[in-house]
Amino acid sequence: MLRQILVLGAGKSTAYLVDYLLGKAKEEKLHITIADLQPENIAASIAGHNACTVVGLDIFNIEERQKLIEKATIVVSMLPASLHILVAKDCVGFKKHLVTASYVSDELMGLDKQVKENKLVFMNEIGLDPGIDHMSAMQIIDDIRDKGGKMLLFESFTGGLVAPESDTNLWNYKFTWNPRNVVVAGQGGAAKFMQEGTYKYIPYNKLFRRTEFFDVKGFGRFEGYANRDSLKYREVYGLQDVLTLYRGTMRRVGFSKAWNMLVELGMTDDTYTIENSENMSYREFTNLFLQYSPTDSVELKLRHYLKIDQDDVRWAKLVELHLFDDTKKITIKNGTPAQILQEILEQSWTLDKDDKDMIVMYHKFGYSLNGEEKQIDSNMVVLGKNQTHTAMAKTVGLPVAIATLLILNNKITNYGVQIPIKKEVYEPILNELKEHGVIFNEFNTAYKGYNSIAEHS
Amino acid sequence: MLRQILVLGAGKSTAYLVDYLLGKAKEEKLHITIADLQPENIAASIAGHNACTVVGLDIFNIEERQKLIEKATIVVSMLPASLHILVAKDCVGFKKHLVTASYVSDELMGLDKQVKENKLVFMNEIGLDPGIDHMSAMQIIDDIRDKGGKMLLFESFTGGLVAPESDTNLWNYKFTWNPRNVVVAGQGGAAKFMQEGTYKYIPYNKLFRRTEFFDVKGFGRFEGYANRDSLKYREVYGLQDVLTLYRGTMRRVGFSKAWNMLVELGMTDDTYTIENSENMSYREFTNLFLQYSPTDSVELKLRHYLKIDQDDVRWAKLVELHLFDDTKKITIKNGTPAQILQEILEQSWTLDKDDKDMIVMYHKFGYSLNGEEKQIDSNMVVLGKNQTHTAMAKTVGLPVAIATLLILNNKITNYGVQIPIKKEVYEPILNELKEHGVIFNEFNTAYKGYNSIAEHS
Repeated sequence: MLRQILVLGAGKSTAYLVDYLLGKAKEEKLHITIADLQPENIAASIAGHNACTVVGLDIFNIEERQKLIEKATIVVSMLPASLHILVAKDCVGFKKHLVTASYVSDELMGLDKQVKENKLVFMNEIGLDPGIDHMSAMQIIDDIRDKGGKMLLFESFTGGLVAPESDTNLWNYKFTWNPRNVVVAGQGGAAKFMQEGTYKYIPYNKLFRRTEFFDVKGFGRFEGYANRDSLKYREVYGLQDVLTLYRGTMRRVGFSKAWNMLVELGMTDDTYTIENSENMSYREFTNLFLQYSPTDSVELKLRHYLKIDQDDVRWAKLVELHLFDDTKKITIKNGTPAQILQEILEQSWTLDKDDKDMIVMYHKFGYSLNGEEKQIDSNMVVLGKNQTHTAMAKTVGLPVAIATLLILNNKITNYGVQIPIKKEVYEPILNELKEHGVIFNEFNTAYKGYNSIAEHS
Repeated sequence: MLRQILVLGAGKSTAYLVDYLLGKAKEEKLHITIADLQPENIAASIAGHNACTVVGLDIFNIEERQKLIEKATIVVSMLPASLHILVAKDCVGFKKHLVTASYVSDELMGLDKQVKENKLVFMNEIGLDPGIDHMSAMQIIDDIRDKGGKMLLFESFTGGLVAPESDTNLWNYKFTWNPRNVVVAGQGGAAKFMQEGTYKYIPYNKLFRRTEFFDVKGFGRFEGYANRDSLKYREVYGLQDVLTLYRGTMRRVGFSKAWNMLVELGMTDDTYTIENSENMSYREFTNLFLQYSPTDSVELKLRHYLKIDQDDVRWAKLVELHLFDDTKKITIKNGTPAQILQEILEQSWTLDKDDKDMIVMYHKFGYSLNGEEKQIDSNMVVLGKNQTHTAMAKTVGLPVAIATLLILNNKITNYGVQIPIKKEVYEPILNELKEHGVIFNEFNTAYKGYNSIAEHS
């Protein structure tokens, strides 16, 4: 009898996710149903596969949704994170396993008792970040502990970037996933982390000026800025006694210092709207954030305001975004600065047809063992193949697909609402990811405690 | 028969408010009841006056509150702004007039119809700012309009500062009113205003770097930074067609640039708490916002981070606040950065026993009349006498008291929830304030449109 996998929402990561499952369909006796609001957008190669059915579904249509969930053996939700809870409640009701790549919400965690009672697995945070970061970190942390080591430091940075061959602008950046998340990154509170036993706090206005560097062999240097809350990982990873705990986002060197100009100007603000933004020129938009002058140019006012020399590459980065162009017009009506900035950036930072993306992850593990202090660095680079088979789709979709099959085959025996930090989960998944080219390189290096200077690895 | 005035809440501005009313008690046949949570704090000279009764009152005790309001002819609420609505509803119920020095909340405005139906006056925003600013501005604006002029520009800045003789620290600043409002000033959204027909927006991280200067004869130079929303005054003052509309706060020159260091560090953040802040030294607090280093000093890290030269007066300002002192300890438990900063600042910025305060207000009115563009500048300085008879108490308390008597004597004939922008209100009040030394000096000056360069006046 066929096992029925229901995939809700065919987003950007569907390619690898469904390809993997269809590839296993025959030997594993699988049938995949993809339910999406716009089923016509699903590639013919997938929709035409004999182990695949594509159906249209409005997730808020309770009857249709429940009919599909009832027929499934396991449900994979690739919907926006806020919608998982609808699906999760139905999965409890019909006793179906659930897999998502999103952070566990408090509401979802509230179902844990029922999920356990029904002997179900609700696996979450099993994409890239969160996902591969958890698994690859816990593998090394568990290994250090198994040897009797004590964790001192954990740093982890991930970035979704463009592949070197497609890296064609001064910012060394293009949007490879959700542009909005990039524009509002770091907002909503100070970044919090620990360095050598001391809490550290960075306000938004300094976040992009407090980067550290990472060298990745064959790919050169990257920089990282802090994510908002590194401290929640203390409990999750069992790192309550660690001295340094720092998580962040990777960019190419120089991105953050340039991005900070947009922050300083106020262009990333998402809390108020600008009247009559439609048809405003990019130049007028820029001038909203500068002092009035009857004579001085927008260019000189901005350079003076941000203290940018004429030969500073940051200046060229602003010009590249057409921020001083009085012919380019905004189309958004009454947009927030962040929405308008996103529109402007999308003109410059959208992937070209042949562009490829790149995922970079970098971990540092400091520990003491037998009285000696040691450090392991570990990093991973994945390159995209094309606009469908992106590195992002691969690193999000594959772990989801592999976990789905493991649950179907009863290889994950721990019931409840969970994330992939147990060996029975991460070990088989990381092993299989390796076969697909998602490979971590590990290096033993000298432990120096927290320091922000790049180490060659 | 005596008219009964009920004063709810005896705050810092009671001295002038009650002195004025007691001074008029005999000729005007008044009796004043002061109701406060801590009646024992009221000065004997007031409490012992034969026209005055002091009672203890918990404002949340409905029965006691309503008993007092029922007996009154008019109610003056000097309570925290959020509590006025409790009193206002009772005033509607018992048909009593109401006077407050606070901004009109939407909830209060919701009572307008009932207030009018009952032929009551609910006068609000009748302190200093809001209050004297409204009245002094509307007097000149109405005068310009009466002559046939058209308003082009309105700027208005107010500051609560220390008197020159008490101006003894490098910041040229001490707390003369509510310290918390100073610490969190400018937070909660970008500052919005208009300059020469264009909207302008300043994010919090640049607010204190976008000052303009004002010279006041005999008192030297001041600077002003923008208040959060200048645009709401368009409707209130009927300035929909004005090109420049800009309201702000005055400080002595150099304050804002130095304050911006605290903003950049993140010390004014009020959105998260710091674990174990109690007994943390001021130096440790400062170090929370700086990168970890095993060797570098907190001093050098901060100077480097904020790019402060050793001979920059801003550096001396930080040292004056004892921010690098490892013997001074914080007493607040798990405080927000803003709460802790307030505690630190209160060590340096609390008025000494003999210190006097100072209020400064500066308006600019640009207009066209008979084809000519003109400008009137108007400013006011009030000095405090002592710690009870402060300039702040005078400029908040006196207009409240004068308005109260005008309403009692039926001199204000416009019913409803209102603010003092009508001639029948502002004219008698400004005239009487003048007798008490609250005097505006007016200057005709050349209209140059918006410009941030100080004019001598």
